[in-house]
Amino acid sequence: MHNPFGPAVPTDRAISALRPLAAGAARLDRGGLLGGWQERNTAATIPHCISQLHSRGNLDNLHRVTGDFDGPFVGWWFADTDVHKTLEAALWDGGFPSFVGDTVQLLEKVQDPDGYLVSYFQAGPRDRQWAELPSSHEMYTAGHLIQAAVAGARNAPPDNAAAQQLLAVARRFADLLVERFGAGGTDAVDGHPEIETALVELFRVTGHRPYLDLAARLIELRGHGLLGPEGRFGQRAYYQDHKPVRAATEVTGHVVRQVYLLAGAVDVAVETGDVELLRAAERLWDSALASKTYLTGGQGSRHRDEAFGDPYELPPDRAYAETCAAIGSFHWAWRLLLATGDSRYADEMERLLYNGIASGIALDGTSFFYSNPLQLRTGHDGSDEDAPGERLPWYKCACCPPNLARLMASLHTYAATGSSSGLQLHLYTPGTFSAGGHTVSVTTDYPWDEAVVVSFTEATGEPFALTLRVPAWCAGERVQIRLNGRDVAFVEDGRARIERVWQVGDRVELVLPMPPRLVTPHHRIDAVRGTAALTRGPVVYCLEHADVHAAVADAGTHDVGLSADGSALYFEDIYLDGDAPIGVRRDHPLAPVALAVMAGKRSVPAIPYFLWANRGPGPMRVWIPLLPYSPR
Amino acid sequence: MHNPFGPAVPTDRAISALRPLAAGAARLDRGGLLGGWQERNTAATIPHCISQLHSRGNLDNLHRVTGDFDGPFVGWWFADTDVHKTLEAALWDGGFPSFVGDTVQLLEKVQDPDGYLVSYFQAGPRDRQWAELPSSHEMYTAGHLIQAAVAGARNAPPDNAAAQQLLAVARRFADLLVERFGAGGTDAVDGHPEIETALVELFRVTGHRPYLDLAARLIELRGHGLLGPEGRFGQRAYYQDHKPVRAATEVTGHVVRQVYLLAGAVDVAVETGDVELLRAAERLWDSALASKTYLTGGQGSRHRDEAFGDPYELPPDRAYAETCAAIGSFHWAWRLLLATGDSRYADEMERLLYNGIASGIALDGTSFFYSNPLQLRTGHDGSDEDAPGERLPWYKCACCPPNLARLMASLHTYAATGSSSGLQLHLYTPGTFSAGGHTVSVTTDYPWDEAVVVSFTEATGEPFALTLRVPAWCAGERVQIRLNGRDVAFVEDGRARIERVWQVGDRVELVLPMPPRLVTPHHRIDAVRGTAALTRGPVVYCLEHADVHAAVADAGTHDVGLSADGSALYFEDIYLDGDAPIGVRRDHPLAPVALAVMAGKRSVPAIPYFLWANRGPGPMRVWIPLLPYSPR
Repeated sequence: MHNPFGPAVPTDRAISALRPLAAGAARLDRGGLLGGWQERNTAATIPHCISQLHSRGNLDNLHRVTGDFDGPFVGWWFADTDVHKTLEAALWDGGFPSFVGDTVQLLEKVQDPDGYLVSYFQAGPRDRQWAELPSSHEMYTAGHLIQAAVAGARNAPPDNAAAQQLLAVARRFADLLVERFGAGGTDAVDGHPEIETALVELFRVTGHRPYLDLAARLIELRGHGLLGPEGRFGQRAYYQDHKPVRAATEVTGHVVRQVYLLAGAVDVAVETGDVELLRAAERLWDSALASKTYLTGGQGSRHRDEAFGDPYELPPDRAYAETCAAIGSFHWAWRLLLATGDSRYADEMERLLYNGIASGIALDGTSFFYSNPLQLRTGHDGSDEDAPGERLPWYKCACCPPNLARLMASLHTYAATGSSSGLQLHLYTPGTFSAGGHTVSVTTDYPWDEAVVVSFTEATGEPFALTLRVPAWCAGERVQIRLNGRDVAFVEDGRARIERVWQVGDRVELVLPMPPRLVTPHHRIDAVRGTAALTRGPVVYCLEHADVHAAVADAGTHDVGLSADGSALYFEDIYLDGDAPIGVRRDHPLAPVALAVMAGKRSVPAIPYFLWANRGPGPMRVWIPLLPYSPR
Repeated sequence: MHNPFGPAVPTDRAISALRPLAAGAARLDRGGLLGGWQERNTAATIPHCISQLHSRGNLDNLHRVTGDFDGPFVGWWFADTDVHKTLEAALWDGGFPSFVGDTVQLLEKVQDPDGYLVSYFQAGPRDRQWAELPSSHEMYTAGHLIQAAVAGARNAPPDNAAAQQLLAVARRFADLLVERFGAGGTDAVDGHPEIETALVELFRVTGHRPYLDLAARLIELRGHGLLGPEGRFGQRAYYQDHKPVRAATEVTGHVVRQVYLLAGAVDVAVETGDVELLRAAERLWDSALASKTYLTGGQGSRHRDEAFGDPYELPPDRAYAETCAAIGSFHWAWRLLLATGDSRYADEMERLLYNGIASGIALDGTSFFYSNPLQLRTGHDGSDEDAPGERLPWYKCACCPPNLARLMASLHTYAATGSSSGLQLHLYTPGTFSAGGHTVSVTTDYPWDEAVVVSFTEATGEPFALTLRVPAWCAGERVQIRLNGRDVAFVEDGRARIERVWQVGDRVELVLPMPPRLVTPHHRIDAVRGTAALTRGPVVYCLEHADVHAAVADAGTHDVGLSADGSALYFEDIYLDGDAPIGVRRDHPLAPVALAVMAGKRSVPAIPYFLWANRGPGPMRVWIPLLPYSPR
């Protein structure tokens, strides 16, 4: 029986064009880029997060409730969620049994008899419990607890006591929410969406309909002023209370709140068959992609209020592009992909993964960016945690690191979808994927290499469709798809579909041409007018000071530009041959594939954006000025 | 006897190349632009501010302390300063006797016996008094009280009881500060500079040296971590505690805090003969002008933390460029002008006045911008007080409106300086100015007209020097200076100096050519690469949607650009003759002088930047894209 698996699993009755693969049906090879990230997550990031929970006081905050710690509460009111997200990461990962066991026991001990579990309010201002919903993050905290429990329920063996215990804890909190805020209860929403998707997922795991009903109710209650006209930020958009979700026409306000809310809206829509709500989420996705998304997939143009900003307001230097926003956007896109099957959502997941998400974590897996600018200026003051010069091991608001950990731990579940009748590959990376009695092995050096080989290692003898995503960035290139050496398949709507009776040993080769490209921005994006960015395949490239300076003495990223045809770099006072094309370099110590841009007779490497700041702090830029405007 | 007058009057012993004019020696004609602003200030802005103090609760906050009001405290902890600044405005203005009298009586009644006077702490958290200096603004509040008292001492008749009473109140508070924080007292500074300049001014009025000593001490105490390593913003630069002032090499952190501090540093330096400190303030001014100042003179590139930002980080759309920062910068420049006589400081005062300051106030004088962006985007969400679509009548943090009121009320004191040996004209506007027994009358339609006529109406028969500023924006133009119809004087260091025995009726004509100019930005200012701005004389121009749309149907400021030679405008899908120069138009209902840019056969007016948003909200831009990059 097909038992779909992962962090977002629609029920059989849901609107769902595609289905996640079953438990155990997706495995990433450690040698591939994504599999390597998973391995790093297990080896470095999750242990680092656990260590930080100990040293930064998050676990002490919980011990404080049980009376086992008598220091002050540390961090933000929602500090428990760092614990919950790390727990979720560990549960998707499948390891860390003592952390999981101890933490679940602790959470059960901390939980109030009525199910409440937010340590800030439990060991302190009890009278403020539920009284400050715009800022308290209480339902948000419940949401992350529930998502950890969902991971345990789906990924732990059925007899795993900790997973069962955690699910019980989460259900008690969820039941309390249903009692207080369900139909007939208080009309209220949390200032930070997150509970919506969590409740739908808990419904999916338990079959308990009131969780879904509450999620649907919370979506509907937004946009009616329940969070009050006033607040720290003086506007409802920050709290996502400016308009009913189904009436909204563009993404706005606090980015993470917005994208979490919309991921939850899709979950509710597909489970309740609410096509109007689904269309609203699609419409808002279009609006975000049209004018409020960076080349890296990052979203959030303002540090102030961590907000989207106006249409086409996309400054590279002050890009906020929070790592959590990119992860939330990834979750949102995944849900739209499942609901509609439209491959542009998978394109966006890919763009986010190799750019705006991957930039959030260092090569060693233990330091992180919270904001992900597309330019770091010469003379940048990196002393502020808000815009550091390099990744930091942790943050006062440490939402991003454990969010990365839980995403990486579940990364295999996003690569493919399938059912008894077919398998759809969305993210190309070495691994094996099974559906409908068929198993394929994927071999590739993607995204560094353009060739992807899909080999069948299991087949049933029944007709079965293999569907391969053909990314939009390939448009205009000659995509090759060969079955056992012979050209097959047309590309339609970003997909190549081959339906046949497959034999073990059948081999499909996909070639997605990856010439270096020069991307120029829409003319309304004032902040990068007169510039171009280098990309190759799904990867956005950047110039980092270390490389520029090594190639051309006294040159820096603030005085660099591309000749108008994009064929060459020039530097102030250094004029160029100008006839060398942008090429590929495979000799960079940091980047499997760097691009080579020519400055005179020297080649300056542009490295993948997500690899920047792995050699100490220093200026960087994605958008490179074009002649003739700079330097003057 | 020469009795210098105005908001910053160095003592005779101070380092001071120039001296403010004496009381009564400067008068602006109401028909000139600056005199008109003063008249509007009297007629509209000050009454508006007084009315707001009543309706917004600032006066109630004070009545709360005396027990005459029992509602809650309203606004920020430093809400008293709106009262103090309005009082200062009224005292420079010379009118509003009942507001002045009532308010001074109230302040005296509110003041504690020991001199303390901050209503937030007086009727509430007494135990927190002086305990939260990073954020409490207590010395900042004292500073504005003192500045109001200084205005009263300098401008009210000697027998004015209210002025005497206010000076006594201010001295009591200042004495308390000296006692607590003077030499031998606590080492402490306020999180918001302002007290420094106020204490020096109080010293100047009273001759009481401990005030100057405390100001000097407070300057020295900065940069040593007294405000703690932590805070709401996580960095010392915000509070101006990152470095000792004399060691700092670039302006940074919160802009208003920075420029207020540096104005105070100049005051201390000139009175104590501290040349090193003066040089530090000059060096920091250079750093600000080199890479952290907008074309409008505005400063502050970030909404977050209201901060300067990195070098060359100057986004037009998210320019913060707070009105108070522009006013603070004006004060700072004035002090440097007095100390050094360098006319570039007067150039900057002029630029600020006609652009970054004037944009803060509507034509009718009763609504205000707090932030002064150089671009408002199509689709801008103006619902946030942080970045409204048009000027608002008041703000939750209402620092800017009464700051404008006090500046406008004292505007005449900044136009000229003088002594027994000469008169220096810095700001050209109709009025009369006297020094050393000489009086001149200035006739001009500046900044709309390039001719300035200076006529002597009083003369002593002794040799006397008339010095006229020749703005840097005239460089390269043929400046004409004629005495009684004959060419005279060379321009040197931005000044033309004519020393002679003057006769009544002598007439000097100055012609400062004002062709429309196209300004292109430094290539490191990424945010406006590939654009140019229109200026004429000291005035920066902008395109406003109303004008663009009226001239070319369906065109908006987001799809507009200039042809590469700057001779013509083009719009998407509208191509141009391209041979018409930018001209001057005098038919615009809003602007005495608009510029005419050509779109096909139509002329689109560009209006002075400071006049934007006087016809309802709508997109605007100062920097106009140049072909060929936009639109693509």
